Amino acid sequence: MKLDKSNFSEWFDTVLREAEVFDYGRYPVKGMGVWPPFGFKLRKYVLEIIRELLDSTGHEEVLFPVLIPKTLLEKESEHIRGFEGEVFWVTKGGHEELDIPLALRPTSETAISYMESLWISSYKQLPMKLYQIVPVYRYETKATRPLIRLREVSTFKEAHTAHESFEDADRQCQEAIEIYKKVYERLGIPYMINMRPPWDKFAGALYTVAFDTVMPDGRVLQIGTVHHLGQNFSIPFEIKFQRVDEEMDLVWQTSYGLSDRVIATVIAVHGDDRGLVLPPEVAPIQVVIVPIPQKDEEMNRKVMEEAKRVKEELEKNGWRVKLDDREELTPGSKYYYWELRGVPFRIEIGKREVEGEELTVARRDLGKRVKVKKEELDQKLKEMSDEFLENIRKKAWEFMESRIKYTEDLEEAKKLVEERYVVEMPWCGEKECGLKIDEEVGRVLGIPLDKDFRLNGKIEEKKCPVCGRPAKAIIRVAKTY
Amino acid sequence: MKLDKSNFSEWFDTVLREAEVFDYGRYPVKGMGVWPPFGFKLRKYVLEIIRELLDSTGHEEVLFPVLIPKTLLEKESEHIRGFEGEVFWVTKGGHEELDIPLALRPTSETAISYMESLWISSYKQLPMKLYQIVPVYRYETKATRPLIRLREVSTFKEAHTAHESFEDADRQCQEAIEIYKKVYERLGIPYMINMRPPWDKFAGALYTVAFDTVMPDGRVLQIGTVHHLGQNFSIPFEIKFQRVDEEMDLVWQTSYGLSDRVIATVIAVHGDDRGLVLPPEVAPIQVVIVPIPQKDEEMNRKVMEEAKRVKEELEKNGWRVKLDDREELTPGSKYYYWELRGVPFRIEIGKREVEGEELTVARRDLGKRVKVKKEELDQKLKEMSDEFLENIRKKAWEFMESRIKYTEDLEEAKKLVEERYVVEMPWCGEKECGLKIDEEVGRVLGIPLDKDFRLNGKIEEKKCPVCGRPAKAIIRVAKTY
Repeated sequence: MKLDKSNFSEWFDTVLREAEVFDYGRYPVKGMGVWPPFGFKLRKYVLEIIRELLDSTGHEEVLFPVLIPKTLLEKESEHIRGFEGEVFWVTKGGHEELDIPLALRPTSETAISYMESLWISSYKQLPMKLYQIVPVYRYETKATRPLIRLREVSTFKEAHTAHESFEDADRQCQEAIEIYKKVYERLGIPYMINMRPPWDKFAGALYTVAFDTVMPDGRVLQIGTVHHLGQNFSIPFEIKFQRVDEEMDLVWQTSYGLSDRVIATVIAVHGDDRGLVLPPEVAPIQVVIVPIPQKDEEMNRKVMEEAKRVKEELEKNGWRVKLDDREELTPGSKYYYWELRGVPFRIEIGKREVEGEELTVARRDLGKRVKVKKEELDQKLKEMSDEFLENIRKKAWEFMESRIKYTEDLEEAKKLVEERYVVEMPWCGEKECGLKIDEEVGRVLGIPLDKDFRLNGKIEEKKCPVCGRPAKAIIRVAKTY
Repeated sequence: MKLDKSNFSEWFDTVLREAEVFDYGRYPVKGMGVWPPFGFKLRKYVLEIIRELLDSTGHEEVLFPVLIPKTLLEKESEHIRGFEGEVFWVTKGGHEELDIPLALRPTSETAISYMESLWISSYKQLPMKLYQIVPVYRYETKATRPLIRLREVSTFKEAHTAHESFEDADRQCQEAIEIYKKVYERLGIPYMINMRPPWDKFAGALYTVAFDTVMPDGRVLQIGTVHHLGQNFSIPFEIKFQRVDEEMDLVWQTSYGLSDRVIATVIAVHGDDRGLVLPPEVAPIQVVIVPIPQKDEEMNRKVMEEAKRVKEELEKNGWRVKLDDREELTPGSKYYYWELRGVPFRIEIGKREVEGEELTVARRDLGKRVKVKKEELDQKLKEMSDEFLENIRKKAWEFMESRIKYTEDLEEAKKLVEERYVVEMPWCGEKECGLKIDEEVGRVLGIPLDKDFRLNGKIEEKKCPVCGRPAKAIIRVAKTY
């Protein structure tokens, strides 16, 4: 197997399969795949970060059924229009036709709003901040891609919150954005934060803020969304509560989600021609120990003893360690095997390590070996874990920033998007011009929220390159997934 | 709300709802319910026990799609006959009819066997011990019951293993039984282990061993199953591997499962007329602190200070603690509120506790208060947690054992089963007599594996009460859920 990241699409599929992250394309339902043990662990550690950040900000985990009756899904009319073309429908139970078709959840706003209308009665219960981590289903007609565009999105963290006022829901969207920033910072993934244009917001939302990143092929991937739902669901679902002043009112809601794409991005952004490069915090195996076989049998025994001692010491300190003692493989083929699987640190133990005071630690991100004093191993690995993350994060941010260019010229914008750059350009704010840019230049990601523009002059002095009128904002445009 | 456990069925539904464990009967799909935050946490801690016991015995967690194509589900003929009447079918995607109907997994033997046929090639990969925790779906025609008989079994831990030989798979069944014993011991749940009669084994198994318990109304609930699948799936799915001697062979498989019923049983077996009684290890809140309001404002402040100090100290030691500082509720109504939710320990803090060296701890299982020295609180709570579990476990086992009776008389057996006893009786081993007992006396649970029978004389000297021939075994018979 030859890996070549410059051919990203093939690289990605191969790495997922060969590193045993996600078994895709072989399960006999199109657009659905299997998480084998190694990938499942990676997924688990990523979810631990997400859960920790949600739990520590007052979110509570719940679990709703996968099936939503058609009648419920249709209650918010814009919502169903956005989803009805891509819903899987259960129509039979045993040999019987069901009275009402049941949807495999494409997302859970309707199911959760229905229960909230039963649960919520007083302002004392607000804000109510719930989340669940479940699969969701989309009958995608576009080409499916492992972990990127699936018919079974096997990991969907969806949060749903209810509030007393528009402003509270608005602040909740800000909190969600801060949480997602932290998620991606801990994974070293660079992101843009874009306020989606009105024609591309979530079906049923007042506004949608999205996290986007640039994939190695220059295309943009949406990796998280935050929606202010206003009272769009609380009106049809009648989610009423009594205010402090005893008046009845309807709640204001938000929802925000992360999917398998978090994991897809970790793999795509950090990987290289040798395979995965995993941030230590989420690596299923953080340290692999490879004993170097010795001709002298006594020394061989001592090498194995030292390898076991190091393993036990590290495990006592909470590291996830693998001692690769397979006799049929050479050290070289073991290096290759564990590099493919993104193990951050490799400790090679031979005669010198048995006899000396130092161990040899190879770092996956740098491809370099360093010497570490035995008694400092735990401490040094901790420091190197921080450096590791810092290093891959910096590299990733530099790459993303190198892929963003500013222009005020429509033709240049087209050319740049064709060359897979993200273009930042002025816009008059009119839908008509936006749709024209969407059509002729590339997908409008929306208005950047992550950046102040230090323009030469004021924004109104810039011109919309479509109509020539004064600009109201800068928008980002790109080729997307 | 009045709780009366002697009316078990109503008690159970009420407790689930009022204690916010599982919201059932209100979600608009029959047989499906919602885990709200409190219940979700209980479920999480129960699953932590199960995961710990599986992970530490070499099982690896995976995740498979919920959808199984009809063609795959039909590959093992006995299996599909056992399930086809109760499968939910997805027949439409968007507005299109699907070519092949997709089943919502009723269980995953077929999906996992299919992937194993791709994954397994050598004896070096065996045993392969996988598990997943997922919802499964049964279009039940029987009356549904929350957490007991659901159309969406929202929690199903299914393990699937592959082995080199019949004997290895047989040993794996033993390991599974030992694991399930530990699960139930840590939850204080009494169990019988019964080898199901051949006519009641899992569809596609060589044999099925089940865990059964007695519910408060005397009916028996199956709470876990272990199946030796032989080569019944590896033949149609062609799961081949190369032996040490380089010959090709087919694997031998087992599967074993636990469901929502684990949680149902914790609630049903230990609960009382005041609500839940939760084993400390799985209680979402282990200690609730109730400050006793004081007329003197300065003392009131000191009480709150002491309450916070105790909370912080306990949390530092890893306890899950709630300080109930709601001002609108009396201490009495707080006691009632947290007793309903099964909190094992309640610490009441008033003037005496502020000024003295002792705290007052009320135990949910005994309904009694004890004095504990402040500096010994953590240590005493640990000891009391062990005593708590021991106490509820002992009570539960005594109850179950009091509900099992031995008889050699068919009429008495009928009467006992009508009175909701589990009957142990001799059996000739013939299917015909077994089915007659099934029909006339009660459900045949099978041959006890958890107990040696100290009969007066040998088993052959006993007579089958149906046909009068010499007995070959003792069987258990009962009214079941």
